[in-house]
Amino acid sequence: MTLSFTLQKTHGMARAGVVHTAHGDIPTPVFMPVGTAATVKGMTVEMLESTGAPIILSNTYHLMLRPGAERVEKLGGLHTLMRWKKPILTDSGGFQVMSLGDLRKITEDGVTFKSHLDGTPYHLTPERSMDIQHKLDATITMAFDECTAYPATHEQAKASMERSMRWAARSRGAFVKREGYGLFGIQQGSMYEDLRHASTAALTDIGFDGYAIGGLAVGEGQDMMFSVLDYAAPALPVDRPRYLMGVGKPSDIVGAVARGVDMFDCVIPTRSGRFARAYVPGGELNLRNACHTDDPRPLQEDSDCPASQYSRAYLHHLVKADEMLGAMLLTWHNVHYYQTLTRGLRQAIMEGTLEDFIAAFEERQAKGPKSP
Amino acid sequence: MTLSFTLQKTHGMARAGVVHTAHGDIPTPVFMPVGTAATVKGMTVEMLESTGAPIILSNTYHLMLRPGAERVEKLGGLHTLMRWKKPILTDSGGFQVMSLGDLRKITEDGVTFKSHLDGTPYHLTPERSMDIQHKLDATITMAFDECTAYPATHEQAKASMERSMRWAARSRGAFVKREGYGLFGIQQGSMYEDLRHASTAALTDIGFDGYAIGGLAVGEGQDMMFSVLDYAAPALPVDRPRYLMGVGKPSDIVGAVARGVDMFDCVIPTRSGRFARAYVPGGELNLRNACHTDDPRPLQEDSDCPASQYSRAYLHHLVKADEMLGAMLLTWHNVHYYQTLTRGLRQAIMEGTLEDFIAAFEERQAKGPKSP
Repeated sequence: MTLSFTLQKTHGMARAGVVHTAHGDIPTPVFMPVGTAATVKGMTVEMLESTGAPIILSNTYHLMLRPGAERVEKLGGLHTLMRWKKPILTDSGGFQVMSLGDLRKITEDGVTFKSHLDGTPYHLTPERSMDIQHKLDATITMAFDECTAYPATHEQAKASMERSMRWAARSRGAFVKREGYGLFGIQQGSMYEDLRHASTAALTDIGFDGYAIGGLAVGEGQDMMFSVLDYAAPALPVDRPRYLMGVGKPSDIVGAVARGVDMFDCVIPTRSGRFARAYVPGGELNLRNACHTDDPRPLQEDSDCPASQYSRAYLHHLVKADEMLGAMLLTWHNVHYYQTLTRGLRQAIMEGTLEDFIAAFEERQAKGPKSP
Repeated sequence: MTLSFTLQKTHGMARAGVVHTAHGDIPTPVFMPVGTAATVKGMTVEMLESTGAPIILSNTYHLMLRPGAERVEKLGGLHTLMRWKKPILTDSGGFQVMSLGDLRKITEDGVTFKSHLDGTPYHLTPERSMDIQHKLDATITMAFDECTAYPATHEQAKASMERSMRWAARSRGAFVKREGYGLFGIQQGSMYEDLRHASTAALTDIGFDGYAIGGLAVGEGQDMMFSVLDYAAPALPVDRPRYLMGVGKPSDIVGAVARGVDMFDCVIPTRSGRFARAYVPGGELNLRNACHTDDPRPLQEDSDCPASQYSRAYLHHLVKADEMLGAMLLTWHNVHYYQTLTRGLRQAIMEGTLEDFIAAFEERQAKGPKSP
């Protein structure tokens, strides 16, 4: 049996559930911190575990270049390498490869590209992507797809989506089933409803353990993303987890959960932490700003993350002094903030209070991050 | 009552004891990790605590420039700022100021210097150093002294030492006594036995809660350092802790403990960690080296530090990929290695097995770090 999903409760379009995997259960809605190069930047596994994150994501593209999929396999897979025993989802490499621009060439077979590290040529196909993710020992493997560029004409989006669907079938064919592991297909179709539905039909025809929504958060803005999600999410099978790739800011996540999405990943909390930014109720603080110099208040008093209890003045000092600990604490806090947010959404769905939760979230956002 | 010291056991010249302070007990021999700018670089307080470090050191010079002693005081002192509840020793600022070269001018009153950050002029005297360390809320305050340059003629060393002794008296006069806090004097005299004895006499005449040995580890080499310690350490009062400043490599610490030193500090374990170097039984490994690329062995199997359990291949990958986690894990491991070393020395003294401990240490060093 591949991984399974229990839908526990719905509230409007929103869902609470559990993904059961070989590496443990994943309560949903869930946010997956990004560990690009087999490390969530600036976080030890202990820090990560303390946030309650039940799953992390890692990147096929980066790992195939360095240290290399065959090496990771010989070293016992990603879980052993990172000493992270819980589930790991890997992307297919497609997204990063597409963004290489002039360095890559796409054909029906796959993508040929040059490493951004040393120019070494690589060829990535659905079959090779499945092979790499298998060697990495990903709990959840993503089908190899093309993330359609934005904006795209209907014709471009259709051709791109259809190729992704052919690649999805090849991914399914090459994926080696293992107990508690799974393969997710990726819906494409840009901002076109008919294409999203066609993509969903193609994917469900093939059959996957979960379904991702790709090609969003590519510059279309939150309003358009939500309007696509309004039809793209509920079109997906109710009995499988739904994963919105590369999303997002806290308000994106709240809105997408309300529209029926279960899983998220994004570099925002970790990258922001390295750039002195902290997510707190109401919005974002930039700890580099001089207004924090003498502020004895904790970063976020009502947080049970140790990092949130440091004074804003101390965090400002660490940032100004270019101390690693500044990035470490802010990353830790942000990842914890995101986990608290998705846990809160899950609890609200379970308790039937999602409207209240969202209203309180939006009211707090309207006040901004600096009000007490 | 200022801080006190219980001498528990001696073995030859070596000593095991406990320093009792307002912020808790410090079993000795002890190594103090260096937290220059109110952070032990790359370590959270939780990581630091997991190593068993009972005290850390912070630097007056860096903190007086940024964030400023008055600001630290307003924010509740260093312990509150850093969320580190155990003892903190601060140096006097003298050592860093002396090393500024052309940027500083020494008179009998003190030292005038320009900040290396922005050129702002400062004046540091024994009185101001005491004031700053008081505001930082240092558990152990160091007398303001001049670290004699090396090499120095007898005449230069004598003049420098005598000024340090006048500054020691002024430090004592300006130090505000508090329950469980203490002031340490610093023995100088370069490599001259008569001057070390004259310095000791001057310091004990003034009376301090502990005594440091300054002016060593300045380029004289381990042999000469040990030959100075042979007379400089036992000359100090037996009923007070003895602190060898800025030392050192593991073998320096082992040799100095055998010569009667109780306390140490050094940037080596933390700085080495940031430069991909790990201390393991037998010596030092450079994790940047290609020989570690495929090595599945843990950094140090017989260590109970989580950081030591990662494979050498993973640590090599993190270092090559410039991931923060590489520096974080290697720093953590190194600080743990140093704490394990001083705990081992302490236990051997308590059990009367110090010769065996040292013989085993030296035998292991002779084999080198790479033998199994």
